[in-house]
Amino acid sequence: MAATPRSLRLNAADNVVVAIDDIPASATLEGGATARERIPRGHKMAVSPIAADEAILKFGQVIGVASRPIAAGEWVHEHNCAMKDFAREHRFGEGAVPEVIAPVADQPTFDGFRRANGKVGTRNYLALLTSVNCSATTARLIAREVERSGMLADYPNVDGVIALVHGTGCGMASKGEGFETFMRTEWGYAANPNVGATLMIGLGCEVFQISRMKEEYSLVEGDSFQSLTIQATGGTRKTVEAGLERVRSMLPRLDAVRREPAPASALTLALQCGGSDGYSGITANPALGAAADILVRNGGTAILSETPEIYGAEHLLTRRAATPEVGEKLLARIRWWEDYCARNGGEMNNNPSPGNKAGGLTTILEKSLGAAAKGGTTPLNAVYKYAEPVTARGFVFMDTPGYDPVSATGQVAGGANVLAFTTGRGSAFGCKPTPSIKLATNSEVYRRMIEDMDINCGDVLDGVSIADKGREIFERILAVASGEPTKSEALGYGEAEFAPWQIGATM
Amino acid sequence: MAATPRSLRLNAADNVVVAIDDIPASATLEGGATARERIPRGHKMAVSPIAADEAILKFGQVIGVASRPIAAGEWVHEHNCAMKDFAREHRFGEGAVPEVIAPVADQPTFDGFRRANGKVGTRNYLALLTSVNCSATTARLIAREVERSGMLADYPNVDGVIALVHGTGCGMASKGEGFETFMRTEWGYAANPNVGATLMIGLGCEVFQISRMKEEYSLVEGDSFQSLTIQATGGTRKTVEAGLERVRSMLPRLDAVRREPAPASALTLALQCGGSDGYSGITANPALGAAADILVRNGGTAILSETPEIYGAEHLLTRRAATPEVGEKLLARIRWWEDYCARNGGEMNNNPSPGNKAGGLTTILEKSLGAAAKGGTTPLNAVYKYAEPVTARGFVFMDTPGYDPVSATGQVAGGANVLAFTTGRGSAFGCKPTPSIKLATNSEVYRRMIEDMDINCGDVLDGVSIADKGREIFERILAVASGEPTKSEALGYGEAEFAPWQIGATM
Ligand SMILES: [Ca+2]
Ligand SMILES: [Ca+2]
Ligand SMILES: [Ca+2]
Ligand SMILES: [Ca+2]
Ligand SMILES: [Ca+2]
Repeated sequence: MAATPRSLRLNAADNVVVAIDDIPASATLEGGATARERIPRGHKMAVSPIAADEAILKFGQVIGVASRPIAAGEWVHEHNCAMKDFAREHRFGEGAVPEVIAPVADQPTFDGFRRANGKVGTRNYLALLTSVNCSATTARLIAREVERSGMLADYPNVDGVIALVHGTGCGMASKGEGFETFMRTEWGYAANPNVGATLMIGLGCEVFQISRMKEEYSLVEGDSFQSLTIQATGGTRKTVEAGLERVRSMLPRLDAVRREPAPASALTLALQCGGSDGYSGITANPALGAAADILVRNGGTAILSETPEIYGAEHLLTRRAATPEVGEKLLARIRWWEDYCARNGGEMNNNPSPGNKAGGLTTILEKSLGAAAKGGTTPLNAVYKYAEPVTARGFVFMDTPGYDPVSATGQVAGGANVLAFTTGRGSAFGCKPTPSIKLATNSEVYRRMIEDMDINCGDVLDGVSIADKGREIFERILAVASGEPTKSEALGYGEAEFAPWQIGATM
Repeated sequence: MAATPRSLRLNAADNVVVAIDDIPASATLEGGATARERIPRGHKMAVSPIAADEAILKFGQVIGVASRPIAAGEWVHEHNCAMKDFAREHRFGEGAVPEVIAPVADQPTFDGFRRANGKVGTRNYLALLTSVNCSATTARLIAREVERSGMLADYPNVDGVIALVHGTGCGMASKGEGFETFMRTEWGYAANPNVGATLMIGLGCEVFQISRMKEEYSLVEGDSFQSLTIQATGGTRKTVEAGLERVRSMLPRLDAVRREPAPASALTLALQCGGSDGYSGITANPALGAAADILVRNGGTAILSETPEIYGAEHLLTRRAATPEVGEKLLARIRWWEDYCARNGGEMNNNPSPGNKAGGLTTILEKSLGAAAKGGTTPLNAVYKYAEPVTARGFVFMDTPGYDPVSATGQVAGGANVLAFTTGRGSAFGCKPTPSIKLATNSEVYRRMIEDMDINCGDVLDGVSIADKGREIFERILAVASGEPTKSEALGYGEAEFAPWQIGATM
């Protein structure tokens, strides 16, 4: 007798399950439902009768409505599941059920670095920021001399001196969206709680002036922020020398901080996915969403991003908006993207492709829910522009591209002190100063890239519940926040992935 | 008695000189002209009578016309110098006087690396290219292991193994201008004669697929081009290991090539300026132009770029166009820029600013001529898009932004095997695999940043002629092409400055 084909119910409220294996007609699944016809792998089967016009629920959320009555055991796809207009209305807050946040005393803790402003770092880096590409080599030479000198051996509480270089900072307009986005990004890295001290290196004549950033943020140079320009210092070698001196002078104070217990509410978790596959939306993403829900219920913050991946289904998030203003802010970002793409000769299109449909995704709601599943189920408390400081608690959205390094750079600039990254194809990603925990969506990629993957979510297909997987991820987040290195940290990822979003013409 | 105030006649045909010092009324200059009024430093004085409507010549070229009769010794500026419409007409080829190219046997030579396709390298690098930011760390880890291992000690004819990483390659449209520009850039680096072998590292699921580039350029993997992806190889560590093996296997053949004499016609010189000042247009730029003229007369190629800096004065170049088609191609790029800026909410404006005018620049022609002076005086033989392979000989134009790293990246992708960079404020710049020779526009910045500057053009202000300075630069170009390290090479510049032009939305 054939083994029971595997299926997955993503939420207790769902009236469909997802076929993990091909389900032959007449096969009876775990849970007792019997297939009335063949259900292809990745596709959906009704597990209870669904009346015409009744909602079809997956992830506990509406992915469409029955376009005709559907019997239990039937295949659910385009022939009997449709999107109705109602599903696209922006009903702000309808789905926002306020969470009961655990009192601080009851929150799980991690061991972090408490900063003067009350924030808590999970790492303790000295960042060499660069105002412009023209100072990139100098910053890298300083980092290299720090390493060669072995001076960090004397400072065991310092995680490293990292050079965060990029290709912009000049040849750009000196005001407007592109400039402001870049300034927020630079400042956000200096302000990230995982950065205990910053030395910023400039050339001198660039459009992005360090002095202007200092003025904008009322920055006074001191133990935690200093700067140098190559032109004022007299060239590259002298600036490397002066930079090394500055680093040497900043290290003792940076090293004096010690890890101490902090509540989970001090965590700001960036949610990412890259190299998605057909399993992302049913294993790693919902499992990460379950972890995000635990974090939020303990007073922490989880940042969903990657606007192009929720495009066309933004009302799924506005329904969760805590206030109409929050919902409106998301819609404003969506309109901004439509303009951004149009003026660049592109087009926003997140509809399921023929390949998506063959794989079992029926509607744009279902596709976007798979991506948004990383964000769990709690109310949407705030919407941020790229690299804006994230000050709200709970579940929030930051507008970023979907492209991993650019998206994560915005989240880290916003203050994320830990990041979780789901991947099906196998991305290798780090984003110093913030540790990146990689979650494989399937066991095959987990095994194949075991040296890059932190957690296997593929076992959800073998019966591990989403809730259990979420708890496992949450525990790992606490451990990593307390200093346990991630795979990508051990490999040396995180500097080359600093990739500020460049908006506007390069002149 | 006061010393004779210094002045500078930039071309024998000029009817004005530039004041290097403030010239008091009644002062007599070298050459015999007497000032009728005070001429501020940086400004122009007529050295012969100029009739109303007569052309005012600086750099041997028309910068405007006399709006009223001007006597010898008068200050020439906005009050008596105007732009006339005629000056803006696109008279294709009017100024193109074909050059007599020296026969190969008479050309000066340099010692370079002859490649199978007949091109000649001035350096001999193994390039680690990356298709996407997701493989950046892996490429850098390979380069680092090469360095740590000391393996290059066995290959003295190899200049290095360089990791050229960037922030793009995914989150972009898979066709169109942005994609094509990026593909040309990547391929152009592999094809540059200073790169003897290329190992390209990808992730696997990125938009910019290595396989697609191989197909586009009919590339067959072998001794000079190989590739690996992290996903197919099983993760980061395995890819670093496999990459090291590939490097090891490519080095012996790369090392087997020897420098041998090659004619100057094998040189493709990229012209750059960054951190310009009031002296750029009268010292380093015309001196570099004189060197470019010598190169062109010896059969070589010189690439002018930085379109925004000639905007509004493009007819200065179309007048030199060898054919109407070449002129039309430049105008098409100008129209492209107008659209590029408009759709990005910006504006093209290269008019002299109030500061420029206070400094002595009267018209946009004069300002643009100061930038274009790097390109000498020979006919414009071709116009290229960013990163297009430069196949013409002589003086050519490549459309790039003005921003140094992005501009130089396009030129190197186009095949530049040597680069000369003028700077007044003091830029520190390198662009491996191509050596970058830095020319200071004034003696003060030369002295202040002596460890970054290769040549002082400030002595033009003290009486060294532009022609002599041009010969000095040309000789240095030959020496550097033969292997003499530039200051920026000695310091370690050139990898972090790889900055492909990113056109289009980041998705
Ligand atoms: Ca900080
Ligand atoms: Ca992503
Ligand atoms: Ca080559
Ligand atoms: Ca310039
Ligand atoms: Ca430039």
